[in-house]
Amino acid sequence: MTSIKDRRTIRKYKQGEVSSDLLNSLLETAARAATMGNMQLYSVVSTRSEKMKEELSPLHFNQPMVKNAPVVLTFCVDFNRFTCWCRQRDAEPGYDNFLSFICAMSDTLLFTQNFCTLAEEAGLGTCYLGTTVYNPQGIIDVLKLPKLTFPIATITVGWPDENPAQPDRLPINSFIHEEVYKDYTSEDIDKIYALKESLEENKHFVEINAKKTLAQVYTDCRYTKKDNMAMSATFLDTLKKQGFM
Amino acid sequence: MTSIKDRRTIRKYKQGEVSSDLLNSLLETAARAATMGNMQLYSVVSTRSEKMKEELSPLHFNQPMVKNAPVVLTFCVDFNRFTCWCRQRDAEPGYDNFLSFICAMSDTLLFTQNFCTLAEEAGLGTCYLGTTVYNPQGIIDVLKLPKLTFPIATITVGWPDENPAQPDRLPINSFIHEEVYKDYTSEDIDKIYALKESLEENKHFVEINAKKTLAQVYTDCRYTKKDNMAMSATFLDTLKKQGFM
Repeated sequence: MTSIKDRRTIRKYKQGEVSSDLLNSLLETAARAATMGNMQLYSVVSTRSEKMKEELSPLHFNQPMVKNAPVVLTFCVDFNRFTCWCRQRDAEPGYDNFLSFICAMSDTLLFTQNFCTLAEEAGLGTCYLGTTVYNPQGIIDVLKLPKLTFPIATITVGWPDENPAQPDRLPINSFIHEEVYKDYTSEDIDKIYALKESLEENKHFVEINAKKTLAQVYTDCRYTKKDNMAMSATFLDTLKKQGFM
Repeated sequence: MTSIKDRRTIRKYKQGEVSSDLLNSLLETAARAATMGNMQLYSVVSTRSEKMKEELSPLHFNQPMVKNAPVVLTFCVDFNRFTCWCRQRDAEPGYDNFLSFICAMSDTLLFTQNFCTLAEEAGLGTCYLGTTVYNPQGIIDVLKLPKLTFPIATITVGWPDENPAQPDRLPINSFIHEEVYKDYTSEDIDKIYALKESLEENKHFVEINAKKTLAQVYTDCRYTKKDNMAMSATFLDTLKKQGFM
């Protein structure tokens, strides 16, 4: 499983096409992931046309991967298909609620990660766009997602045209707890984040943002309370509109 | 990647131990999954003691895997560790909100699926317990999870002592959409669910539950509106208590 060990995000792709046959075969195998009650509560919308990429691009803050990747896959929570089946079979579905969203989101993300592993094993490069959950309503409109569906992850896919360094990760003992959660002492925190704080690229971020600490780059620039509060409200509104609240 | 293609849920385990070294090595590699802003917003609590398994068991509706597996792993959303770091570095964290929960849940599930793939590739059997999100408060109490953490997935792990048949999956074209979401006609629905409805085991479920259709087994017995509504309310309450609303 060296493809998982060596994994890096790939944002630059060669011109070569990624065939539908290859993609479908990877998605078919990815669907072997665990799924609640074997319901498979997800759908994938595949974007290849320039026009659709143009429309999606601003919803992902114009990250260049959206327009440059041969394929953009939007992984969506989907309780619509299952609900259609229930209605057609004289059964009264009860999936227009928050718990159903959470269960379908779990299904969708297990499937998404399985796809990424398989794609990388096949030599493809992928980039996970977290921006999907920042602006779900825009994506819903562009991809014409009906009620009881919800976009949750976007993956750009293509043949790699770069080989970036692997990013750092926290020490393994910082996120494994034996029997009960062991809360962190200030010494623990210093140790856990020491490597991250020592990296030249992170020191550079602190400098160019005129901050005192790397943590301030996160809280004041990258992921601010103000943005998070605004996007939380939007997300909850959109959940309601899509029938999950 | 035959381990993904051949995957089945394993609920029966041999007596043999699963060493901490092996588990830690798998979890370390699993942490190569994509993570928002390289924040790694998750923790895993590992349960091996009989006493703790006894306490977790009823929270998972007494599914026998919890007590029979050598190891039970509870994968948790974790914005506590990152928030501790921010506070200790003169930065004001803004992660006590719903969007932060959604982002951390994504991180956690990508990491969880990566772990499952690696465990299965190493010959281990796993079972994903969806019950984790049905009763989060109980699990929080048992595992002593602090604010800004939340249990999202439980995986029982052990050496396989069964080799069950692979379950059916929907036809691939039923969950892939080209360019925009194509809603389902009643003919589509008939085709998509035909295989599932034709299986002897599913016909048996319909019969023993005295239902007319397989869909009714789902809506009236397995995943009812009443249960879903009650668990939605509980989940949202618990999100609030854990500091995410």
